[in-house]
Amino acid sequence: MVPHLITALTGPINELEQRILESMPAIERWFRLEWMEHTPPFYCAADLRNAGYKLAPVDTELFPAGFQNLNVEMLPLAVQAAMAAIEKICPEAKNLLLIPDARNRSPFYLLSVQRLTQIFHQAGLNVRLGSLDPAVQEPTAIALPDGSELRVEPLKRSRRRLGLKNFDPCTILLNTDLADGVPPVLQGLREQYLLPPLHAGWNVRSMARHFQAYEELAKKFAKLLGMDPWLITPLHGRCGGVDLAHGAGLDALRTQVDAVLAKVRRKHKEYGIRERPFVVVKADSAAGGKAIITLRDAKELDALPPPAEGEAAPGPVLVQEGVPTYERIHDAVAEPVVYMIDRYVIGGFYRVHAARGADDVLSAPGSRYVPLAFAPGRHLPRLGDKPGASAPNRFYMYGVIGRLASVAASYELEATDPEAEVYA
Amino acid sequence: MVPHLITALTGPINELEQRILESMPAIERWFRLEWMEHTPPFYCAADLRNAGYKLAPVDTELFPAGFQNLNVEMLPLAVQAAMAAIEKICPEAKNLLLIPDARNRSPFYLLSVQRLTQIFHQAGLNVRLGSLDPAVQEPTAIALPDGSELRVEPLKRSRRRLGLKNFDPCTILLNTDLADGVPPVLQGLREQYLLPPLHAGWNVRSMARHFQAYEELAKKFAKLLGMDPWLITPLHGRCGGVDLAHGAGLDALRTQVDAVLAKVRRKHKEYGIRERPFVVVKADSAAGGKAIITLRDAKELDALPPPAEGEAAPGPVLVQEGVPTYERIHDAVAEPVVYMIDRYVIGGFYRVHAARGADDVLSAPGSRYVPLAFAPGRHLPRLGDKPGASAPNRFYMYGVIGRLASVAASYELEATDPEAEVYA
Repeated sequence: MVPHLITALTGPINELEQRILESMPAIERWFRLEWMEHTPPFYCAADLRNAGYKLAPVDTELFPAGFQNLNVEMLPLAVQAAMAAIEKICPEAKNLLLIPDARNRSPFYLLSVQRLTQIFHQAGLNVRLGSLDPAVQEPTAIALPDGSELRVEPLKRSRRRLGLKNFDPCTILLNTDLADGVPPVLQGLREQYLLPPLHAGWNVRSMARHFQAYEELAKKFAKLLGMDPWLITPLHGRCGGVDLAHGAGLDALRTQVDAVLAKVRRKHKEYGIRERPFVVVKADSAAGGKAIITLRDAKELDALPPPAEGEAAPGPVLVQEGVPTYERIHDAVAEPVVYMIDRYVIGGFYRVHAARGADDVLSAPGSRYVPLAFAPGRHLPRLGDKPGASAPNRFYMYGVIGRLASVAASYELEATDPEAEVYA
Repeated sequence: MVPHLITALTGPINELEQRILESMPAIERWFRLEWMEHTPPFYCAADLRNAGYKLAPVDTELFPAGFQNLNVEMLPLAVQAAMAAIEKICPEAKNLLLIPDARNRSPFYLLSVQRLTQIFHQAGLNVRLGSLDPAVQEPTAIALPDGSELRVEPLKRSRRRLGLKNFDPCTILLNTDLADGVPPVLQGLREQYLLPPLHAGWNVRSMARHFQAYEELAKKFAKLLGMDPWLITPLHGRCGGVDLAHGAGLDALRTQVDAVLAKVRRKHKEYGIRERPFVVVKADSAAGGKAIITLRDAKELDALPPPAEGEAAPGPVLVQEGVPTYERIHDAVAEPVVYMIDRYVIGGFYRVHAARGADDVLSAPGSRYVPLAFAPGRHLPRLGDKPGASAPNRFYMYGVIGRLASVAASYELEATDPEAEVYA
């Protein structure tokens, strides 16, 4: 069931895994107490990179796709988590309006939407799909690869409520990241639960803010376990006013890149890691486009070809420590992706890319997905098993780091909550 | 994966299954609202009987054993449910004291205790075992069939708290049914969470009270689905002052048996069921011993051999409609057992008995257990599948009836709660 894994588990991460397994009760309690104070994201997915010497999240999605890649045998886990989430938010819930990403018609994404629909239907809700696509004027069937179809319907907006024809939901679940801003039809809804909240959209989010929150949390968590937070944290810096297309703000960027590389170099020295440090430069928010640049030296900036049209708009960028992934599935580079609903890890999979290297970004065309990795039962640790030796232990550790990223997201959302004072 | 099942699914139960599948959102919402008003039993197991024409619980255990029979691949479901339960009861929880049944040394039971320990450890608690056996004066290792061992320790009682040497739990989990009464060491604990509460013990419980509560619930539930509650309810009567050993109170018993048989006969007539009705007579509480008698006619009472010593003490008895089970696994009679932690179905299995008939009680020496039946994913219904046609649908229906029994248990516990007025 579990794909053949090769992880370069040397030194630190073995100790980390060991410590995480030994501290399981303390860790679970720590999460319980965090969730008493902070509302978990309704759902989220964390991309992790396992470098052997460190394990860190590099991206946290609050409108996750890819549910079709989760092991279908473990669906009951997702359903149970969804039940717990619904019971907490709105026990009277009857109808759930799911709003998918109207721009994404890839068959993979449509299968993910279908899986989401299935999860919330099994959790006991009438689930229907509303489309943000103005072209959808009447109920429309979209064919799926498996021969079944999705039925999307035009949204009906009244002054205070959003729904469909003959369908008035108490809860609206967004599965579109709002990168292009909040459509008017979603604005000013006060009577219904809108999940995730609008400020979880990429129009508001800042990667730097997320990783700032993660860094602080990782410090607390590392203190609990008595370890170096760097082992689970990607170092980062933020740099405003960069315009790669027109070469503006490059000096500041060079400084930032040098600064992060220097910090990483020190850490590598400290742990005797031979890898050559690198950084990944990406837009801090959706507004900045999707260009992702890997640099081993600030000088490489000068040699860069100008980014493709619309790939890199002017704006702040995140300079993130590059964490190579040394996991392999049948020779292909793999990175684990961990999925959560509310406080619960519901599964995960490996994103693998045969054509990419250990330092490359794998969420790119050509990537395949291996849902088998988090096979049933496999993400429960087996005590007594040597750290590193057992996939189950690996997956428990991944679940812990994934949940750290989701706590970070809830801190992030508190910081940007426009109605924060209401609760204060 | 799923064992070969033969169920005599004729008429009514097909409609029942159909209706349950169609009403899933209404059903799940109904449970959510029940759980808002009523505290679920911490854990419980319901024995169901599927007669083809009706499906009903015949026994509900509030200190369940048999966890070793659950599909190990689905353990994450149990762990997640345990996490949700703990978070609700005591998020600060660190230490859990598990008190198993000291009288039960069967290797199967010990494996069940081991599985329970595993579940709550994975849920993030330090779990240790305390023994009610006065012979246990120091930490004692008990060997398990799989070569591992359980470590039980002597209980340490202070005036207000119960624990072990160097182990002060905030929560105490009982896995012994208190049939012989509440040991002094468990009495008057006010500072710790004692789960389930002491009045869940068989020294307090009455089967008649449980099935009375179930009957009322089943009526509400059947109304929601627009169906005859009898399809999910075992008819029953209660009869006090019976002493089978000395033939006392038999007249009253005959009357009760005739009354229940007559009711069943009317129902069979209504549905054109050819089965000959029968009743099962068992002690209403633990005090009455374990004798279980199957009767097709009150007259059969006269021909009964006197029960074995200690098998039937004087006391009230439950006269329960006999629900035959027509499920077969490889020719052996099978009855489903559904397990729940808090509000969640965590799995189940078939209790099968090759040497017994469809009318017999299967929880008896010689019974085997087949955990495969509720295989991963299999207890999620597949919409579109013909009712009866698909195992998944069967298992969703079993989960619904099992949860009905657990709601009934929470009504039962409210009725007998010595501190009820405190909450009133």
